[in-house]
Amino acid sequence: MNYQKILEEIQIQIQSELPKGEVASYIPALKNVQADDFAMSIKLLDGTSYNIGCFDKKFSIQSISKVFTFAMALKLYGKDLYKRVWYEPSGNPFNSLVQLEYEKGIPRNPFINAGAIVTTDSLLSYYKNKNITFNEINHFINSLCKKEIFYNEEIFKSELESGYRNQALASLMKSFKNINNPIKDTLETYFKHCSLMMSCEELATAMLFLANHGVDPLTNKEFITAPKAKRVNALMLTCGHYDASGDFAFHVGLPGKSGVGGGIVAIVPKKMAICVYSPRLNEKGNSHTGTKALELFTTLTELSIF
Amino acid sequence: MNYQKILEEIQIQIQSELPKGEVASYIPALKNVQADDFAMSIKLLDGTSYNIGCFDKKFSIQSISKVFTFAMALKLYGKDLYKRVWYEPSGNPFNSLVQLEYEKGIPRNPFINAGAIVTTDSLLSYYKNKNITFNEINHFINSLCKKEIFYNEEIFKSELESGYRNQALASLMKSFKNINNPIKDTLETYFKHCSLMMSCEELATAMLFLANHGVDPLTNKEFITAPKAKRVNALMLTCGHYDASGDFAFHVGLPGKSGVGGGIVAIVPKKMAICVYSPRLNEKGNSHTGTKALELFTTLTELSIF
Amino acid sequence: MNYQKILEEIQIQIQSELPKGEVASYIPALKNVQADDFAMSIKLLDGTSYNIGCFDKKFSIQSISKVFTFAMALKLYGKDLYKRVWYEPSGNPFNSLVQLEYEKGIPRNPFINAGAIVTTDSLLSYYKNKNITFNEINHFINSLCKKEIFYNEEIFKSELESGYRNQALASLMKSFKNINNPIKDTLETYFKHCSLMMSCEELATAMLFLANHGVDPLTNKEFITAPKAKRVNALMLTCGHYDASGDFAFHVGLPGKSGVGGGIVAIVPKKMAICVYSPRLNEKGNSHTGTKALELFTTLTELSIF
Amino acid sequence: MNYQKILEEIQIQIQSELPKGEVASYIPALKNVQADDFAMSIKLLDGTSYNIGCFDKKFSIQSISKVFTFAMALKLYGKDLYKRVWYEPSGNPFNSLVQLEYEKGIPRNPFINAGAIVTTDSLLSYYKNKNITFNEINHFINSLCKKEIFYNEEIFKSELESGYRNQALASLMKSFKNINNPIKDTLETYFKHCSLMMSCEELATAMLFLANHGVDPLTNKEFITAPKAKRVNALMLTCGHYDASGDFAFHVGLPGKSGVGGGIVAIVPKKMAICVYSPRLNEKGNSHTGTKALELFTTLTELSIF
Repeated sequence: MNYQKILEEIQIQIQSELPKGEVASYIPALKNVQADDFAMSIKLLDGTSYNIGCFDKKFSIQSISKVFTFAMALKLYGKDLYKRVWYEPSGNPFNSLVQLEYEKGIPRNPFINAGAIVTTDSLLSYYKNKNITFNEINHFINSLCKKEIFYNEEIFKSELESGYRNQALASLMKSFKNINNPIKDTLETYFKHCSLMMSCEELATAMLFLANHGVDPLTNKEFITAPKAKRVNALMLTCGHYDASGDFAFHVGLPGKSGVGGGIVAIVPKKMAICVYSPRLNEKGNSHTGTKALELFTTLTELSIF
Repeated sequence: MNYQKILEEIQIQIQSELPKGEVASYIPALKNVQADDFAMSIKLLDGTSYNIGCFDKKFSIQSISKVFTFAMALKLYGKDLYKRVWYEPSGNPFNSLVQLEYEKGIPRNPFINAGAIVTTDSLLSYYKNKNITFNEINHFINSLCKKEIFYNEEIFKSELESGYRNQALASLMKSFKNINNPIKDTLETYFKHCSLMMSCEELATAMLFLANHGVDPLTNKEFITAPKAKRVNALMLTCGHYDASGDFAFHVGLPGKSGVGGGIVAIVPKKMAICVYSPRLNEKGNSHTGTKALELFTTLTELSIF
Repeated sequence: MNYQKILEEIQIQIQSELPKGEVASYIPALKNVQADDFAMSIKLLDGTSYNIGCFDKKFSIQSISKVFTFAMALKLYGKDLYKRVWYEPSGNPFNSLVQLEYEKGIPRNPFINAGAIVTTDSLLSYYKNKNITFNEINHFINSLCKKEIFYNEEIFKSELESGYRNQALASLMKSFKNINNPIKDTLETYFKHCSLMMSCEELATAMLFLANHGVDPLTNKEFITAPKAKRVNALMLTCGHYDASGDFAFHVGLPGKSGVGGGIVAIVPKKMAICVYSPRLNEKGNSHTGTKALELFTTLTELSIF
Repeated sequence: MNYQKILEEIQIQIQSELPKGEVASYIPALKNVQADDFAMSIKLLDGTSYNIGCFDKKFSIQSISKVFTFAMALKLYGKDLYKRVWYEPSGNPFNSLVQLEYEKGIPRNPFINAGAIVTTDSLLSYYKNKNITFNEINHFINSLCKKEIFYNEEIFKSELESGYRNQALASLMKSFKNINNPIKDTLETYFKHCSLMMSCEELATAMLFLANHGVDPLTNKEFITAPKAKRVNALMLTCGHYDASGDFAFHVGLPGKSGVGGGIVAIVPKKMAICVYSPRLNEKGNSHTGTKALELFTTLTELSIF
């Protein structure tokens, strides 16, 4: 298949979508982006890349980082991780706190904020120290994308200062003894990995191991075992897009994960990893044009898993 | 692939699982089954069948019927159906009523009870009369499985008499004007289609259209359009097993739907439909051995979509 | 104290309040009232009456009937009643269903709908038959107010036909085995006693036993024991006005119970019973002018219990 | 009435109750008390005192402090305070977070933790600085009880270190912009006033202004206006004992407020203030023997307001 041509076709078709939606504005630092940017990258298992738009522009990966920290925690703890964070869809955001309270501080899955905070906390318990932990997260992603990556200090600081709801979640879980480190350290590490800056091309490369049973096809290094990779993918499909997970499953039909920075990653099992970027979000908090682009992609390629 | 051999292999391996779990007992009529029964059927797109165990024994299809009524309603109403029932996962069962109340009587998806009741109500509005509606449902399934099917009067009556929680859901939705027919008629029709009796072989055949973009490959008749079939499949993957949907996605990795009667249907897109039956349920209300058998199946065949 | 003069003073002062608020409109039958009607009656323990406005006009007592059925059930069952209905405030109306679900079908108190339905159900279990039960309720109130009273057939029928939320509550409680009779019989009896028509003067007379430790001071007949009367009064103070109970306790400072028909009853322990009527309701569903009139009353008489 | 004799009678009758219940143990510092201590003090409007047991032993006043901070905030802000904290009962503790979330960060009343935290935060906004604020609170209570009072450093520190649920409440409210100062400062001030140590006699004296329309009868100083005192009293009656408020209203029949330290204060309007102390708590978190003693008191004196 001529993927470059398909990307070009997609770029033409999404032009009319670009002005739709709104850039995330809950922290000022996130607003400072080109609202109409668009980029898309495909990385095949053999290492071939196809790119379009501003594919090497770095953006805040936000919740996409949850995929990497979950993979790391799953690798370290295996099934024991499920004692602290479950793997089922969570219903609507309204339930975040009530569900957490009803289920005694055990979050529904590692892709909602509460669950990702627990995942980060488990890494902190393993690596003992918040700087080492962040370095390990950084190193894990860096090994996957083969590029040095950095977090954005300004975004990190604003998240840290305004993240009261995340503080509420962490405090509630701590009252149920499901946060084992000081809340401050856990949240700092969490906000720091959410503030990592990566480009479409880097993210597509970094996700490739999940399209290949946990093994980076470019280096043959196993990052996680095949069943664990399958678990991550199943979770991305059922829980990767908050309250639009069902919609994404239907329209795109690929395991994926979005971030409020405007990025979405997705994988086609045994074939490729994809990343798309466009910062305007739809009302569910996912990239508007990014979702449309991925939908076009599976329509044109018939690569939906359904 | 030698599917018959794979079924035989599965049958051997699940023997030790058969005594685990409990048969549904909330109504007496459901208890009158052979607790250790096991059956599995595969139906390929070309019509070839592979069967094992008591594959022609009829059992109560229960919630599996929701797949057929949702497909019918989607065919009749298209996107308008989503004004009355959404298509996102629902979180834990505890939330059933609070979520329905918070979301003003619009159920999260057509595979939770509230959503299936709305779906049935929409069919009743279309066909005007409860007998005609049930006949149409019966006819729809009958055209798919090419066999006459009947409902079990005893199961139907017990469900009707003891279904107070479903009555509560229907009454609450009616107070939000999301049930348009008399509650009694809607629930009668709903309980009747849940009480349909089918065998594994019949169910595998009846699901084949969903493995083939909505077209029955045996007759080339289009039952629903390709995008609608994709929607049904995406929903089965994200919401087909209540609070174990994420687990099923991981362990089995196929779109599927279970019923408390002990049946589970699943499809491998573009390849086949599968049905498994074993009446003992795990603590999530899904067939214990059935789930194990499907997990073995995707492990042996590598047909998981992930 | 010159109570007649106080009533006259109140009538003058509330004139500007009369146009405020809206008459209950959830059923057509309730709308057919004179929106600007006002009446107030005081009945002292010695039998003296003071009245103003249309004090002998009959109106739908609605939730005020819950006071009488609770008194009856408490008399019959004593503390055993608390196994089925609790006596604590309930928080906001939004919680009605979730609280009932979380607390396994045991309503918070007998003055919210769910609790009053349970109370009625307990009477039905005692008297066996819905007609006898309604006659007993009628007879109980009749003995207190010394007048024959009737229910309004049109109001009863409309409530019965449109009471889907009450049906949802009853069905949910039945699923928890906290409704012992057919839902239809329980709700019919419940809606019938809510549809009783009484005048201000009759209601003030009927409430007198609660101002006098359970004994009707006019006949010296003990209707309930002193501790039980105290319980009813404590409940009226803490739970008598839904989500405005705290506000009523502050502004009026008397145990009382309101109904959406526009009536409010209140008692001054050891002194008198009061009833006020004015059909326009404030946003909490209590008579707007009625509440103002009672507030003026305790301000002018300094009879607030605080 | 011979109050001293009544206190002696009560002391005899509650002996068998003393071993029942458990001392609060969520922080170690609270456990270090004599579990079987008992004390009771009555203070009449004319200044006469009646005491029994260890009436001058100081204990941690805990939630009783909420009465004083609410009175202070009401004095400073008047009705504007109700924009930030409501005055209605709250239903069960389970709802704490869901209710707060549903009602957008506005707590139901100033006597649940969330509400008391908001009250403290409002004082902090007024006095600007946490030390000044705590001094003002201290001074307010000190002026009422005419004794110097101190907080317990050990209790304060343990509360601060383990109060994760209160942190969750404060963070959630801050996310709704209903906490205006740094969470740390607000919680420090809150935990500090909860850690104040007072004796039964001091507390009875300090509550006297609420029995006398807001005016300290011993000095004739108005601490708050009469309507505001009425509001505090109405709130104590409807919300003073968490999920046992209805029960307390019935059994005791007086406006009151309990603390997990084992103290309960109550007032008889226009007559007296009462304080009782006994550290073992019943399952609702209120002093077991204290509640019994107050119940005996209103039975023997017939001073229940009902």
